Amino acid sequence: MDRPIYLDDLQVGQRFTTATHGLDEPQIIAFAREFDPQPFHLDAARARDLVFGELVASGWHTAAITMRLLVTSGHDIAGGLIGLGGEIAWPAPARPGDVLQATVEVIAVTPSRSRPDRGTATLRIETRNQREETVQILTVKILVPRAAPRTP
Amino acid sequence: MDRPIYLDDLQVGQRFTTATHGLDEPQIIAFAREFDPQPFHLDAARARDLVFGELVASGWHTAAITMRLLVTSGHDIAGGLIGLGGEIAWPAPARPGDVLQATVEVIAVTPSRSRPDRGTATLRIETRNQREETVQILTVKILVPRAAPRTP
Repeated sequence: MDRPIYLDDLQVGQRFTTATHGLDEPQIIAFAREFDPQPFHLDAARARDLVFGELVASGWHTAAITMRLLVTSGHDIAGGLIGLGGEIAWPAPARPGDVLQATVEVIAVTPSRSRPDRGTATLRIETRNQREETVQILTVKILVPRAAPRTP
Repeated sequence: MDRPIYLDDLQVGQRFTTATHGLDEPQIIAFAREFDPQPFHLDAARARDLVFGELVASGWHTAAITMRLLVTSGHDIAGGLIGLGGEIAWPAPARPGDVLQATVEVIAVTPSRSRPDRGTATLRIETRNQREETVQILTVKILVPRAAPRTP
């Protein structure tokens, strides 16, 4: 879509798929050094003896990459993609060599009762790798403006 | 604590507070360029005319900083801090100049039914700034090993 999306453009059941992001070991280590410095995110040799058995990405890295895929998908919510909160799960870790892609489904659209200029939408966003393994499921409520009513 | 924490060390109601992290505009912009390139996270001048009225951090940046505060808190879960999933909310955005700190409360401790060597704990993690405003509430289930039973 080229024009910004307003609340009235959204319908339950709408879906789209983002572009892809290729994840590699240097990205995983750089993110981990800054935000999640645990050995299974930092050092492939040590990771072999730890819980995952290999180097894996921080779940927060997977979340951040998913956000980038959403923001750059070309489906632009008017005013920006602003999450209020939601539920997140990481059924499996993302790993070096993974090609990540997110699919988005609109699962609720709710006009605000108190503010006629806005509402919320709930999105279910699944992030998968190239083997169709799901590495993250995010169900998030976002703020969505309503378009100004047209003068009749 | 100096020694790793096992499931049997955890009790509902236990609390601790992390160190602090000073957030500034360059950090916010660097994270946003990589993961959440929206104008209210990238450009203070443009942000003044947008929804937040000022430059604010991506919620995923707040989440990542919170993870760093947890991992470096000195309260080390045996085997590492491994989140399975949970709920996240951002009641207010983090901003340049904020000094962020997280408080952690253990709200559930659940031995695994099928695996006697492990269980899960649920943590409620509130991230606040220096004005005691809550910028993130994360309720997360983590994997926690049980200590090997001692030979009697």
